[in-house]
Amino acid sequence: MAEVSVIGAGSWGEALAILLADNGHDVTMWSALEYEVDMINNDRENPEKLPGVKIPENVKATKNLEEALKEKELVVLAVPSKFTRSTAHQMAQYVKDGQIIVNVAKGIEESTLMTLSEVIEDEIKNADVAVLSGPSHAEEVGRRIPTSCVAGAKTKKTAEYIQNIFMNEVFRVYTNPDILGIEIGASLKNVIALAAGMADGLGYGDNSKAALITRGIAEISRLGVKMGGAPETFYGLSGIGDLIVTCASMHSRNRRAGILIGKGYTAKEAMEEVKMIVEGVYCTKAAVKLSEKYGIAMPIVSEVEKILFDDKPAKDAVKDLMLRGKKSEHTSAVWRD
Amino acid sequence: MAEVSVIGAGSWGEALAILLADNGHDVTMWSALEYEVDMINNDRENPEKLPGVKIPENVKATKNLEEALKEKELVVLAVPSKFTRSTAHQMAQYVKDGQIIVNVAKGIEESTLMTLSEVIEDEIKNADVAVLSGPSHAEEVGRRIPTSCVAGAKTKKTAEYIQNIFMNEVFRVYTNPDILGIEIGASLKNVIALAAGMADGLGYGDNSKAALITRGIAEISRLGVKMGGAPETFYGLSGIGDLIVTCASMHSRNRRAGILIGKGYTAKEAMEEVKMIVEGVYCTKAAVKLSEKYGIAMPIVSEVEKILFDDKPAKDAVKDLMLRGKKSEHTSAVWRD
Repeated sequence: MAEVSVIGAGSWGEALAILLADNGHDVTMWSALEYEVDMINNDRENPEKLPGVKIPENVKATKNLEEALKEKELVVLAVPSKFTRSTAHQMAQYVKDGQIIVNVAKGIEESTLMTLSEVIEDEIKNADVAVLSGPSHAEEVGRRIPTSCVAGAKTKKTAEYIQNIFMNEVFRVYTNPDILGIEIGASLKNVIALAAGMADGLGYGDNSKAALITRGIAEISRLGVKMGGAPETFYGLSGIGDLIVTCASMHSRNRRAGILIGKGYTAKEAMEEVKMIVEGVYCTKAAVKLSEKYGIAMPIVSEVEKILFDDKPAKDAVKDLMLRGKKSEHTSAVWRD
Repeated sequence: MAEVSVIGAGSWGEALAILLADNGHDVTMWSALEYEVDMINNDRENPEKLPGVKIPENVKATKNLEEALKEKELVVLAVPSKFTRSTAHQMAQYVKDGQIIVNVAKGIEESTLMTLSEVIEDEIKNADVAVLSGPSHAEEVGRRIPTSCVAGAKTKKTAEYIQNIFMNEVFRVYTNPDILGIEIGASLKNVIALAAGMADGLGYGDNSKAALITRGIAEISRLGVKMGGAPETFYGLSGIGDLIVTCASMHSRNRRAGILIGKGYTAKEAMEEVKMIVEGVYCTKAAVKLSEKYGIAMPIVSEVEKILFDDKPAKDAVKDLMLRGKKSEHTSAVWRD
């Protein structure tokens, strides 16, 4: 059994800490907030994050970052994407050479267009940075509902080490060397989740949503492959898998915001109503910049941008998408004639 | 505008007839049943198939197969898969050289392991057989809800002709030369829909279902590529797209049957309760035969077979899937070490 830590005490960090404790590891959770540390150590439940889910005794919490990182074989970084750089910056002084850091947040840094693993490597030069991603609502993982994820790492050795640490009979882990593809798919899927929510808000049906998901991942894949990712990754658990779960579930803030926008709310009103930061709204700007940088047409992303930032009615955007020039399904199609 | 016909007056045939009529074509529908012909010609609504949906005046129905086929530029074949061979056999004498037949049913003939377009070509040697497939519940297409499909044909000329005939502002059509890939994905997805329904019936969550869908299409793709299909097709509208809509919707008989089996019904009891033929149950046998013939491991299909025909409890099957040998996400993964 290993000494591991989870940096960040949000719902996903907590669910992963419980999973790791279930697997017999000694888990240290780090939170910047005193009351969260007390809640974990004393109440053994965080009613704000995962109500009704008991935190096992082999999880202990601390506010001391050095203590959380020292002598740990594996560190899970589970802070929201907007805190990834600043947290990594603080961590750098305590990380030892080759220490494994598994990032589980999703996002693209808008100012640099870096993925989060690139941000972490930018701040912590000597770590072995990996990712864990896939269709995994924390609420369900906390309740031990069967879930599958993919572990992305530079080496097979690290990927299989992560697989062994996390895997059990309710949490299946696959390995994949394509860290970039995992991160691009996992981040940009939020834009498509917004679009799918808008279709729901407009009163459209399952057909419309399935088409948006399928064509959405096709355009993400086109971009991601140009950036150096593998096509298979976008059609794997961290790409289409995560997109499916996001578009199906009312757990998703992106989808809920999309529904409101489809019903006629502005982007700002929708975010106020959902009462949380909607990653997809910020991610849309990064996606548009990436599509321009790499010269890839992303028609759905582009329409979402117009809806969010140019007040284009969602209904008009759908019509424009339906009536685009007639296309072949895949750019690589080979015909007999 | 074209003279077209739709052979078969089920809900999908009717929805497509209405779509074609909306596009200004003259549509002849064929049904073997006198009362259906009368209902279409006189009542202009089929309350059994698409209740509340009005059939436009430029759709007329006939029981005369020769009349339905004669001088038609395009024929849509929309009979259930178990009647495809017998209907094609009857049609053969009236089909002229190069006449376009667009098959819209899904399935594999269990005794021959032929796809339906192969069955049609086996019966009608001189036709230009094509397919139309994708995430398209008839109930939604009949109500003009935005939908996207893929037209598969041997030549670009035929595929683009079909695209032009069907496409409008609520029905977007892509072209694809990979007829085999379209048909394999569209047929085998019903097995995965059964599995997804079982997960729902067991009380599992969105995570479990998204993982089954993602890993399900991965195994279908492995088989289909070995058979000669293109990987992109399985991740397109007729593959993952159709699978998503099937797994999300209570319109799907396969999913409803799966839910009952997950709750403990036998396959036979579930089919009686759903009161319809569940294609996925028959398709599972064909899928297992194909996986053996082509030497491709299909773990989900194989567990569904054990549940359906060997009385294996669905819960045990899920556990066995979760605890299979540890894998890389994709067989083509290239590692640095």
